[in-house]
Amino acid sequence: MSETPRFLRPVTVHEADIGHAVTFAEPLPLDCGRSLVPFTVAYMTYGALNADKSNAILICHALTGDQFVASAHPVTGKPGWWTTMVGPGRPIDTNRFFVICANVIGGCMGSTGPSETDPATGKPYGLNFPLVTIRDMVRAQKRLVDHLGIKTLLAVVGGSMGGMQTLQWAASYPQSVRAVVPIACAARHSAQNIAFHEVGRQAIMADPDWKNGEYQLAGTRPAKGLAVARMAAHITYLSEMALQRKFGRALQNRAALSFQFAPDFQIESYLHHQGQSFVDRFDANSYLYITRAMDYFDLAEEHAGQLAEAFRGSPTRFCIISFTSDWLFPPVENKRVAHALNAVAAPVSFVEIKSDKGHDAFLLDEPEMDDTVRGFINSVALAEGV
Amino acid sequence: MSETPRFLRPVTVHEADIGHAVTFAEPLPLDCGRSLVPFTVAYMTYGALNADKSNAILICHALTGDQFVASAHPVTGKPGWWTTMVGPGRPIDTNRFFVICANVIGGCMGSTGPSETDPATGKPYGLNFPLVTIRDMVRAQKRLVDHLGIKTLLAVVGGSMGGMQTLQWAASYPQSVRAVVPIACAARHSAQNIAFHEVGRQAIMADPDWKNGEYQLAGTRPAKGLAVARMAAHITYLSEMALQRKFGRALQNRAALSFQFAPDFQIESYLHHQGQSFVDRFDANSYLYITRAMDYFDLAEEHAGQLAEAFRGSPTRFCIISFTSDWLFPPVENKRVAHALNAVAAPVSFVEIKSDKGHDAFLLDEPEMDDTVRGFINSVALAEGV
Repeated sequence: MSETPRFLRPVTVHEADIGHAVTFAEPLPLDCGRSLVPFTVAYMTYGALNADKSNAILICHALTGDQFVASAHPVTGKPGWWTTMVGPGRPIDTNRFFVICANVIGGCMGSTGPSETDPATGKPYGLNFPLVTIRDMVRAQKRLVDHLGIKTLLAVVGGSMGGMQTLQWAASYPQSVRAVVPIACAARHSAQNIAFHEVGRQAIMADPDWKNGEYQLAGTRPAKGLAVARMAAHITYLSEMALQRKFGRALQNRAALSFQFAPDFQIESYLHHQGQSFVDRFDANSYLYITRAMDYFDLAEEHAGQLAEAFRGSPTRFCIISFTSDWLFPPVENKRVAHALNAVAAPVSFVEIKSDKGHDAFLLDEPEMDDTVRGFINSVALAEGV
Repeated sequence: MSETPRFLRPVTVHEADIGHAVTFAEPLPLDCGRSLVPFTVAYMTYGALNADKSNAILICHALTGDQFVASAHPVTGKPGWWTTMVGPGRPIDTNRFFVICANVIGGCMGSTGPSETDPATGKPYGLNFPLVTIRDMVRAQKRLVDHLGIKTLLAVVGGSMGGMQTLQWAASYPQSVRAVVPIACAARHSAQNIAFHEVGRQAIMADPDWKNGEYQLAGTRPAKGLAVARMAAHITYLSEMALQRKFGRALQNRAALSFQFAPDFQIESYLHHQGQSFVDRFDANSYLYITRAMDYFDLAEEHAGQLAEAFRGSPTRFCIISFTSDWLFPPVENKRVAHALNAVAAPVSFVEIKSDKGHDAFLLDEPEMDDTVRGFINSVALAEGV
């Protein structure tokens, strides 16, 4: 993963801190027709692989997530992004299971992405990085799983874009995964979702410090554009009700309106904070590539518009979880997947959890989700004799 | 309205094309504590005022609207923004009624706003323009109505921010308006609405061509930032369902995904078009000021949190209209207003129209809205002997 010369990485993280990393010399073929070679997958593991390698669970992260699912983030120092779900005694219990979480290709935490050096030019890829898809991300994960000597994953679990990957795993490698848990996701990105992503991309590209994607060469960072993109996206992660309950029209550190443009309302300060803290840990080009991968995701499209065909004959068990107030991936989209699975008589359970926390509910402490995942994973483990 | 020296106006419109304009030498006191002096109100009228001046209806425009409610826009050449509602034989029938529509103060179509020259400095106001409120906008309209010699308006009608103004009219000048028709609005801006506005403002302010609001002096225009703001806002004007029906995942002029960042999807091209065409007709600083006015709107706040008190003893009749798929101003917010009116026994009818077109439904051909407004206005006119 180390090349000469090195250019400024947009996210300041020491290579020693990205966890494990494996670099593959064999090309990774991509949906766009190009290949990545070599390519690196950075990942973390938790717990121990058992003797017959049957207790491995892969966690797939969302748009702005990474491999640090259950351990502190090396840049922010914050706890892992899903410590309520993954850890000793948690629903995905690292005392029993070997948990793997890999940074997606296109990402910026050690896996090959647009901020890494293009061996063809010796410069950062920037916009020369190929457009990757959810299927490409899963292809790279499969190579990692093969590399670890694991023939069959007990389960693949993820929310949001991570949920898309779980569905893609079941569709691409049905023999290699016993069960998948797609949470708060969809089998396709909707027009509204594409629209919000395009606003974010335009905000980044409008930033003169973006420099047509070559900001590493210029020594700049499109921080303002990336912050605006994050702020817009963040609104979609919460429900209107949650925003009203948390913030309403409460003022930030003042007794009265200021009649200025500085943040008067708590919701504004909160959004600013979300935007600012995001740019310290994320790369703008990675944001462009990963949002595009989500936009391109349409599992039915590979099967002439018939989503059910993606899963025909699959031996994989499904546990689909959605949240009532999630308007980014509303329950109706999760249900579409369940219906498609029903149509091919695949084993599927569908749980719609009443929550007013919006899309981000999947990252929060939602006891019903935790219980559902715990019960499902235990029953799969039991059935597989783990 | 004419001063020397003149600076580049961000929107290219000849003064002769803005319709009527009246400049008041008497100061306009503002909620922020400052005053505007002099101030100009640009407006259009349609139909004829009757002898006893009892047939006047004021139309209030939304965030990006203007006085051209029923006649061609001088910049875009497009028809008026509400020709389905206002015109000869329309629900608000200009053969019977004298219709007035004024550009709000803070706007950019001839009424005093941040792009006009500050008499104190001889330069464009920019951020020295005072922060105006919905109540200030209505104060300026009241001055115009007085100037026209009209003691009592038969009705004040408007949607979205225009609806906020109708409520403010009833609260501020109950004796001067017989009836109000607030459509697709609320008595307060929600946390989510403030959040979306703040994203738009941050996008504008992040544009280096904004130059801390002094872009007229610099000869620049923050077009990219303003376009991003418009794109983000535009998504909130449509329902998820409408976007899915109109665009879905349909591709723009191509048979397959391009694996590029150029717009692949029709929804992306549509948003780009919305962004681009907006910057030709709207001023970025006006966008900052008017969004802020909406954020500040909370009619209950003037009355110790009791919305009903805003309307106690009011003789005004109310006809509140909302749309089921409007998620910017959901029916529940419109209902809150109706409940407050009920609490003080004010005459109110509330109509919730089933539509999947989202917030923008109020600007579209919605027969049930048209019939409701026609019937209500006719009954008010009958009661008033017009």
